[in-house]
Amino acid sequence: MKPELAGVKALTFDVFGTVVDWRGSIAREVRAFAQEKKLRVNASKFADAWRSGYRPAMNRVANGELPWTKIDVLHRMILDEVLLKFRVTALSEAEKVQLNRVWHRLKPWPDTVRGLKLLKKKFTLSTLSNGNVALLNNMAKNAGLPWDLILSAEIFHHYKPDPEVYLGAADILGLQPQEIMMVAAHKEDLRAAARQGLRTALVLRPNEYGKGRHPDLSPEPAFDINAKDFVDLAAQLGI
Amino acid sequence: MKPELAGVKALTFDVFGTVVDWRGSIAREVRAFAQEKKLRVNASKFADAWRSGYRPAMNRVANGELPWTKIDVLHRMILDEVLLKFRVTALSEAEKVQLNRVWHRLKPWPDTVRGLKLLKKKFTLSTLSNGNVALLNNMAKNAGLPWDLILSAEIFHHYKPDPEVYLGAADILGLQPQEIMMVAAHKEDLRAAARQGLRTALVLRPNEYGKGRHPDLSPEPAFDINAKDFVDLAAQLGI
Repeated sequence: MKPELAGVKALTFDVFGTVVDWRGSIAREVRAFAQEKKLRVNASKFADAWRSGYRPAMNRVANGELPWTKIDVLHRMILDEVLLKFRVTALSEAEKVQLNRVWHRLKPWPDTVRGLKLLKKKFTLSTLSNGNVALLNNMAKNAGLPWDLILSAEIFHHYKPDPEVYLGAADILGLQPQEIMMVAAHKEDLRAAARQGLRTALVLRPNEYGKGRHPDLSPEPAFDINAKDFVDLAAQLGI
Repeated sequence: MKPELAGVKALTFDVFGTVVDWRGSIAREVRAFAQEKKLRVNASKFADAWRSGYRPAMNRVANGELPWTKIDVLHRMILDEVLLKFRVTALSEAEKVQLNRVWHRLKPWPDTVRGLKLLKKKFTLSTLSNGNVALLNNMAKNAGLPWDLILSAEIFHHYKPDPEVYLGAADILGLQPQEIMMVAAHKEDLRAAARQGLRTALVLRPNEYGKGRHPDLSPEPAFDINAKDFVDLAAQLGI
């Protein structure tokens, strides 16, 4: 392990894309749902459209156009637009509520649970996600994610990459920023964490946006760790 | 199980006295410390004095005399007074910091871990304590407490029994108040929870204040459950 990482006590994880496969999970549920209801929907494009509304919706909170609003509510606002766009009009309110909860049922990547169990031997493990606490807790119960605690943008009333989220995590964990390592598949999240003094680990998730649509996967020496997956992260942290 | 409890999805736990034995844990550490430093201190009385400053300190936050202040900081303010009172003047700052962290190292009652593991099979388990998040997380790591998540007065910037704590827990868990059961050894905590619509379970901890000094241990039909310990609580909840 790099000697400058000896002081790390807690790992905080981005969740959507880093811990769980949002696109595959949503596409599977939408596909099954469409078959059952005899609808013609491109399930992967549906997932992409839903996710693409995510950053603009959070920006409306960040710029004050909306008051503090949980991701569950933002997801529902976006879902209503996506259903219109895909001309899916036959859903009852109860079915929309159930569909919106798919974000509580996202499935982990194959290495996630094994990697987290290894990492938990040495570190405090927490989410640090824009997902709300109930969503993250339900996901953890469904998927067997062994978090020590669940921290969320919801607790700080700021969405990542606002500094309040990273500094809030340090304050509430009772740690210095450099005692925390942010783990994410997204470079912007890590750069924002690093600006507040947190350590950083990039974990590659080449299939987050679907096979063949690769996000920026180049390792960056500016991050403390560049890892293939959570098991590799554990190895690089001396476990 | 009582049929009206079928809708309960999460259990929220008071911690000091209910989950862990603060008095015995503190007295043991103070006794060892005093021996090492060759001090004469009545360790149990020291623990009682420290704890007795707790409610008055939180009241200073509740009435606005102090701004929001974490329990770690309140514990330290009280500790400084207790050290004076017990005429313990030879401690370095580092020793005081270390002693103040005894609250992060409190030991569970004998049934705690076994009972929580049983209860976790069926329910979301969370702390709902006036202790701050870092304290509760360190305690959980030390003692092997299998929480799903850690909720604290710190998140709501209100101390129990303020209603904001119980209603805040329901909001952040995404549950109705009646889907949550507050578990505590203290009737005031449960009465405050019940006023906000939460279900209630009294768990008897006859030795919280030392052997022979019994708190009010009478069962009350107003509580949904009156249990001997966490294993009995699990049994009464159908596990």
